[in-house]
Amino acid sequence: MTSSVGVDRVLEPVGVLPQAAWRLDASPAIREDEVRVRVERLNLDAASFRQLSEKHGGDGDAVRAEVLEIVGARGKMHNPVTGSGGMLIGVVEEVGPSSPLGVKAGDRVATLVSLTLTPLRITDALRNWDGRSEQAPAEGTAILFGRSIVGVLPDDLAPELALAVYDVCGAPALTDRIVAEYEHPRVVVLGGAGKSGSLALAAARMAGARTVGIVRNTDEADLLRAAGVADEVAIADARNPVEVAAAVGEPATITVVCVDVPGCEHGAILATAPGGTVIFFSMATSFPAAALGAEGLAADVTMLIGNGYVPGHAEFAVDLLRRVPAVRSLFEARLAGD
Amino acid sequence: MTSSVGVDRVLEPVGVLPQAAWRLDASPAIREDEVRVRVERLNLDAASFRQLSEKHGGDGDAVRAEVLEIVGARGKMHNPVTGSGGMLIGVVEEVGPSSPLGVKAGDRVATLVSLTLTPLRITDALRNWDGRSEQAPAEGTAILFGRSIVGVLPDDLAPELALAVYDVCGAPALTDRIVAEYEHPRVVVLGGAGKSGSLALAAARMAGARTVGIVRNTDEADLLRAAGVADEVAIADARNPVEVAAAVGEPATITVVCVDVPGCEHGAILATAPGGTVIFFSMATSFPAAALGAEGLAADVTMLIGNGYVPGHAEFAVDLLRRVPAVRSLFEARLAGD
Repeated sequence: MTSSVGVDRVLEPVGVLPQAAWRLDASPAIREDEVRVRVERLNLDAASFRQLSEKHGGDGDAVRAEVLEIVGARGKMHNPVTGSGGMLIGVVEEVGPSSPLGVKAGDRVATLVSLTLTPLRITDALRNWDGRSEQAPAEGTAILFGRSIVGVLPDDLAPELALAVYDVCGAPALTDRIVAEYEHPRVVVLGGAGKSGSLALAAARMAGARTVGIVRNTDEADLLRAAGVADEVAIADARNPVEVAAAVGEPATITVVCVDVPGCEHGAILATAPGGTVIFFSMATSFPAAALGAEGLAADVTMLIGNGYVPGHAEFAVDLLRRVPAVRSLFEARLAGD
Repeated sequence: MTSSVGVDRVLEPVGVLPQAAWRLDASPAIREDEVRVRVERLNLDAASFRQLSEKHGGDGDAVRAEVLEIVGARGKMHNPVTGSGGMLIGVVEEVGPSSPLGVKAGDRVATLVSLTLTPLRITDALRNWDGRSEQAPAEGTAILFGRSIVGVLPDDLAPELALAVYDVCGAPALTDRIVAEYEHPRVVVLGGAGKSGSLALAAARMAGARTVGIVRNTDEADLLRAAGVADEVAIADARNPVEVAAAVGEPATITVVCVDVPGCEHGAILATAPGGTVIFFSMATSFPAAALGAEGLAADVTMLIGNGYVPGHAEFAVDLLRRVPAVRSLFEARLAGD
């Protein structure tokens, strides 16, 4: 077990898992159960990219320089401020003899584990990236451990599109699972017009729930209405609990938080009915704000940390995209707008 | 709804709930649905007290000064570093005509909502507190909103003991609820000899689970064995995932994290069987570390943010203490050792 989760790759501090490590050994020689991938593209996590972009006032060169500095210092793309990473796509270069991942050299794959634990070396100084979008063309190598998750890219989706879907594929799968625990639930998604939000809405709708999308402005409302996955669409600032509760109206059975800004915990809790569930998918979620907020509101709600892994999540999300063309269009529009 | 959750008491930033606010209006005049309590004792949250004590190298005077500074600046005892607070006991002084809380002037009560959202004024400069324990005798006033939780103190428990139990009473109640979702679960509690940990073990045992307590050293192991609530007791550093998984052995159905130090997320996830549940009660839990850690380990586990409120939680915890005298002794020993 020890080697399969990458403990051997941890340089400091010793004894922690790769995600918790400050620095990893990203050297390209693989262990028995590892896989080496030739990197083609990084997809930075939305919270991480937003933090970097805001810090540098939208200066793409400065964002690129800081990403290179982080990867150089840590051996992984692990934003020290947001604690988040992202994913990558590439081509399998070498597979260790005891790797259980089921891939072979030449497969084009997306890594479905976070960049925060993936040993990464960049060799092209990211020269083909302008630092102005989450998707960064890159050359270099990445390492996958024995216990990992990787998806071979589907033939009918552009790699950029598949990557964007895989990045958030935990959200629809977990939403689907929780919807099945209730009878006729009303599902509210904060950030319903975003990538994880629109897929969560599509999953809830497919599972038979009534769906409500909360968005921040009329442009997003139009986008979401066009996608046809929300029975109702309303506008509210997700950071304003009173505004959120008013926009939601009848309390939600399940509230899914897909807004990647801090401070959305209390609105989600206030909008949820007693006995309901809040699923937090935003990496900007504050654990104490959620825990103490629910207590302070005397709110008997189940609060879930959105686990990025649910068995079969990648296939489930790709299937949703195929079955709901409007959601696919929404993703493609977001990619074009990047 | 707006006034009953205390929005009127928020001075900055406007529009957030009291827990998220930087500063509250702690003035003693009450609104229609509020209750004013004459404070007798504060019980600082363990993570908060530890942070303050470590920052000041155990200097009690410096800890006291910083607590006074925080309460003076924020109108509440909300540690800006840990994000946590604690609770208080006192005597009800005045009850607004439309308060739904069911208390009357003269009742000795414990507040069951966090100090991070409770308007608080201290008038005695905490002169009877040495700054060396979590329990601080105090004079002043606190405000309870319409939507709040308050417990009248039981006659058969010392106020200090009741307060210590109420402070962690969400843990046994939620553990009991989750145990009921599984058949013959094996419940592992990290920090099993602590206050929330021992009550969680007692609740799991009462509900029919097999119980395992993980503690940090032989002293704690002896304490926990004497309490008789754990079928097995093992020693491990909760921050070391490999050590935790080895100490737990057969993977847990439910893992409850009651260790108030950062970095325990990965061990808890690694120790839990697929399909199992991790309940995080420590305010030191990192949301991204848990979310990305589970993904990185391809761990199909449900991760719960420990909600401090479950209906009936205070009575449930006091009842456990009455039924398991050894847990009561453990609490009394911890209070005496403070």
